[in-house]
Amino acid sequence: MASSTQTQKRPDPQAKSAGKRADAQRNIAAILDAAVSTLGRTPEASVSEIAKAAGVGRVTLYGHFPNRTDLVDAAFAHAIEEGERALGQVDLDGDPRAALSRLIASSWHLVDRFRSLLLAAQSVLPASRIRELHAEPAARVERLVERGRHQGVFRTDLPTSWLVGVMHSVMHSAADEINAGRVDTDDAAAFITATVLASFTPPGEPVPR
Amino acid sequence: MASSTQTQKRPDPQAKSAGKRADAQRNIAAILDAAVSTLGRTPEASVSEIAKAAGVGRVTLYGHFPNRTDLVDAAFAHAIEEGERALGQVDLDGDPRAALSRLIASSWHLVDRFRSLLLAAQSVLPASRIRELHAEPAARVERLVERGRHQGVFRTDLPTSWLVGVMHSVMHSAADEINAGRVDTDDAAAFITATVLASFTPPGEPVPR
Repeated sequence: MASSTQTQKRPDPQAKSAGKRADAQRNIAAILDAAVSTLGRTPEASVSEIAKAAGVGRVTLYGHFPNRTDLVDAAFAHAIEEGERALGQVDLDGDPRAALSRLIASSWHLVDRFRSLLLAAQSVLPASRIRELHAEPAARVERLVERGRHQGVFRTDLPTSWLVGVMHSVMHSAADEINAGRVDTDDAAAFITATVLASFTPPGEPVPR
Repeated sequence: MASSTQTQKRPDPQAKSAGKRADAQRNIAAILDAAVSTLGRTPEASVSEIAKAAGVGRVTLYGHFPNRTDLVDAAFAHAIEEGERALGQVDLDGDPRAALSRLIASSWHLVDRFRSLLLAAQSVLPASRIRELHAEPAARVERLVERGRHQGVFRTDLPTSWLVGVMHSVMHSAADEINAGRVDTDDAAAFITATVLASFTPPGEPVPR
């Protein structure tokens, strides 16, 4: 009898732990969204500010992300994942130069939107980790560059990985130029496209107008 | 009499302070040289390691550089100054494309040599400060780009400051590619030159072979 009473009083342990897991997942999602938007305004935002924006206590936040670096890493990975959904929609068929222009426009939109989050990430994560988190977007550029090389419209005298790195660094340099007030956000995509298409052009061939 | 004895015993205060200043300058020079070479091997080297390499005590070092960031800043400025002496020797006359190739070769030699020091600087100094410390080398590139634009060999549809930024970022991206083991140090100067000359070529004109 006692044992049966106990069973009635105690909620089903499986249901309880599922409820806890759902709570935890809601908290993690709220923390990551808050981190992306808070660091997206203020790259040096503190863990307390992010916890406050997420509507959770600091103890809860630290339970999921033991330190600020872990949190910035997870927020950056979260933003990249969101970006991947957008980039997956870009039409990469047809003339590789036109496809590259479309991919740059969409990628730049993301870099520009997550500019301040990128600064936050660069200030605490090593370059190797930033590169690792960019593996999927980098692989997409790589496939397009390879196709352009096979079709003879992109240069083959420099390695594919080098060309991918050039596109990456020209985009991030645009973010720096905007931060320094030397380039207008509205001009950036055209500047990046003109620069990258020129640098991908085979020697002896004219730079696209 | 007592005062005359005192005067004889006490060294000339001016000579003493000049001696102290000379000591201080020797210490600062030793600390900066040690910081450049220590951070140039290990970007995360500690203040103690740098003090040890300089042959001075930690207290002496902290007397000149109150914290590690100040020391990294001064070491980076010291390296740029040394670089400026080398870059000042580069012949920038004649065909702007050939002059740019020579300037890239010398600049790359410096970036490659100070690659690890740059990582140390990037991990503690804001991008704006790194740019400020590069003001003199950037001005030299800018003058050459302007000359090439006037002579019609470099593009004028993108701002000069943008083109200078592109050269800067392609060089630093090469340093990242080497750190990641994807580019060989010996290939880098040729890759950078090919990329930068292509990206500076006016639309409609052929990319230099």
